[in-house]
Amino acid sequence: MSSNKISTKRRAEILDGNAVAAEIKAEVKDAVARLRESHNVQPGLAVVRVGEDAASAVYVRSKIRVSQELGLKSEHLALPAETSIEELLDVIEQLNSRADVDGILVQLPLPSAMDERKVLEKIDPAKDVDGFHPINVGRLVLNQQTLVPCTPAGIIELLKRSRVPMSGAIACVVGRSNIVGRPVAQLLLQHDATVTVCHSRTRDLASVTSQADILIVATGRAALIKSEHIKPGATVIDVGMNKITDEREARELFGDDAEKRINSIRTRGYTLVGDVHLRDALNAAGKFTPVPGGVGPLTVAMLMSNTLQAALMRRGIGNVSSEQ
Amino acid sequence: MSSNKISTKRRAEILDGNAVAAEIKAEVKDAVARLRESHNVQPGLAVVRVGEDAASAVYVRSKIRVSQELGLKSEHLALPAETSIEELLDVIEQLNSRADVDGILVQLPLPSAMDERKVLEKIDPAKDVDGFHPINVGRLVLNQQTLVPCTPAGIIELLKRSRVPMSGAIACVVGRSNIVGRPVAQLLLQHDATVTVCHSRTRDLASVTSQADILIVATGRAALIKSEHIKPGATVIDVGMNKITDEREARELFGDDAEKRINSIRTRGYTLVGDVHLRDALNAAGKFTPVPGGVGPLTVAMLMSNTLQAALMRRGIGNVSSEQ
Repeated sequence: MSSNKISTKRRAEILDGNAVAAEIKAEVKDAVARLRESHNVQPGLAVVRVGEDAASAVYVRSKIRVSQELGLKSEHLALPAETSIEELLDVIEQLNSRADVDGILVQLPLPSAMDERKVLEKIDPAKDVDGFHPINVGRLVLNQQTLVPCTPAGIIELLKRSRVPMSGAIACVVGRSNIVGRPVAQLLLQHDATVTVCHSRTRDLASVTSQADILIVATGRAALIKSEHIKPGATVIDVGMNKITDEREARELFGDDAEKRINSIRTRGYTLVGDVHLRDALNAAGKFTPVPGGVGPLTVAMLMSNTLQAALMRRGIGNVSSEQ
Repeated sequence: MSSNKISTKRRAEILDGNAVAAEIKAEVKDAVARLRESHNVQPGLAVVRVGEDAASAVYVRSKIRVSQELGLKSEHLALPAETSIEELLDVIEQLNSRADVDGILVQLPLPSAMDERKVLEKIDPAKDVDGFHPINVGRLVLNQQTLVPCTPAGIIELLKRSRVPMSGAIACVVGRSNIVGRPVAQLLLQHDATVTVCHSRTRDLASVTSQADILIVATGRAALIKSEHIKPGATVIDVGMNKITDEREARELFGDDAEKRINSIRTRGYTLVGDVHLRDALNAAGKFTPVPGGVGPLTVAMLMSNTLQAALMRRGIGNVSSEQ
């Protein structure tokens, strides 16, 4: 009987990133309102963008829109592509010194001639709502209170709110970027998981990933993770966002469900695919984040949460959450 | 025949920490001499100690003695136990501002009333030869040039000089301290190993550690790691330093070889034991660091190397090593 059970096709529970993001945003909105009442403080977010990258413009507008919905004070500084690094550093310097600005985000990528590291290190660590400043990266490792990068922080919130136990779990992170892989590995370790980091040099990836109770994939390689990589019943978090433009590839990836995807390619020119093979994850995983609609929405929600957090920490105000 | 081979007792190659430390120290001595000739610069190390901890006094004297042997300028500031944190911060401030001081080390532990974090963060990151400042911890994670904590750096040097391949290897770190476990995991990842961090909450430790080609143990638990934890032929690095005072325990751990250990307990009151069971490691591992004489000597050698490195980086001088 148990062997029959194993052969039965599973259907993974979908972890709904949009729903969790909405929950977090509602909490932030509530806390912002209470902060205005109790301390007459409105947290402020400044987003700086350089040049005309179309995707960046969309992301920034979305961040500004959400921050306004939640009652934050926000401003969008769109600098021309020919801005010099000295000018950009001056802009950051001014934002650093302004009392009404709690969070500063410089939208990446910067124009290629600019030294990204120099720019990110210019941001006051106390206002570094992206958590990319080396001192904040260090504080995260040292388990000190700090501003945590948004996507990793969102993944942990999703796991917590989906009641996925982390303590003692085997967690595997595929990908070692500074933005996702490395920080999420640190956070899983703080939550007492046994954590493995895999990457392009890992030999026999499937033999490592298939041991994981929690598998987090952030590689930028479409459908890299297939059935053989997934421990049956595991929680699989797909951070990938890859554009598929080839109809045949979409057909291979989605089989019977490909029509909608192919329509999307025909109308928009692409369809979005994660780093995890969708059908395989649905069949093998216990819980799974879809792409789109999984981790993506959490990133913006955590940016709002970080801006609130920065406003509280900078002013030495304790938590204003309604939880006791 | 192959099964006979497996049952044959191995004898691990001993990785001689003293020999590698001597090699590193000779290189530093040589580079220091060349730096004096070429730039008239003598790197300076200041070691600050507070209170009368006997072990700390021994460690500091050893660091000072070695630094002098290598031609560094060194000074030992022994402050009384009743020193206030403000006084200590003042001392660090003065060392920060002195041009002839390249490395500042505050010997831990500090008296318990002192906020260790505040003290360590006071040290100029450019002079932080222990690599404990959060910004240096962050730079290590971000793979930026920085001063790397001495014991982890020493372990990597030992692996390199013992020709243990790291790229693509399965590496497992047991213990997640800020001083050893976490930074050595980062370094192994920079060297393209697939890295797992285990700790006290890890379930079925042996099933994880026994997959590792490189096993690094830093838990402070005597002889925690036994045969079943070790993949046959693995490289096992034992960072533990535990005092055994009980003769019966020594007899259990060392069997036929216990006499010397028991003599040590009778004459000195203790014998030093690593986190890895010695006989088990000798039989199962391919390469193994003994305790004492393994990782220990490397820590001081890397402190000297870091002081030289700090002197070069602070002055914007490229490498003065004789290698081309």
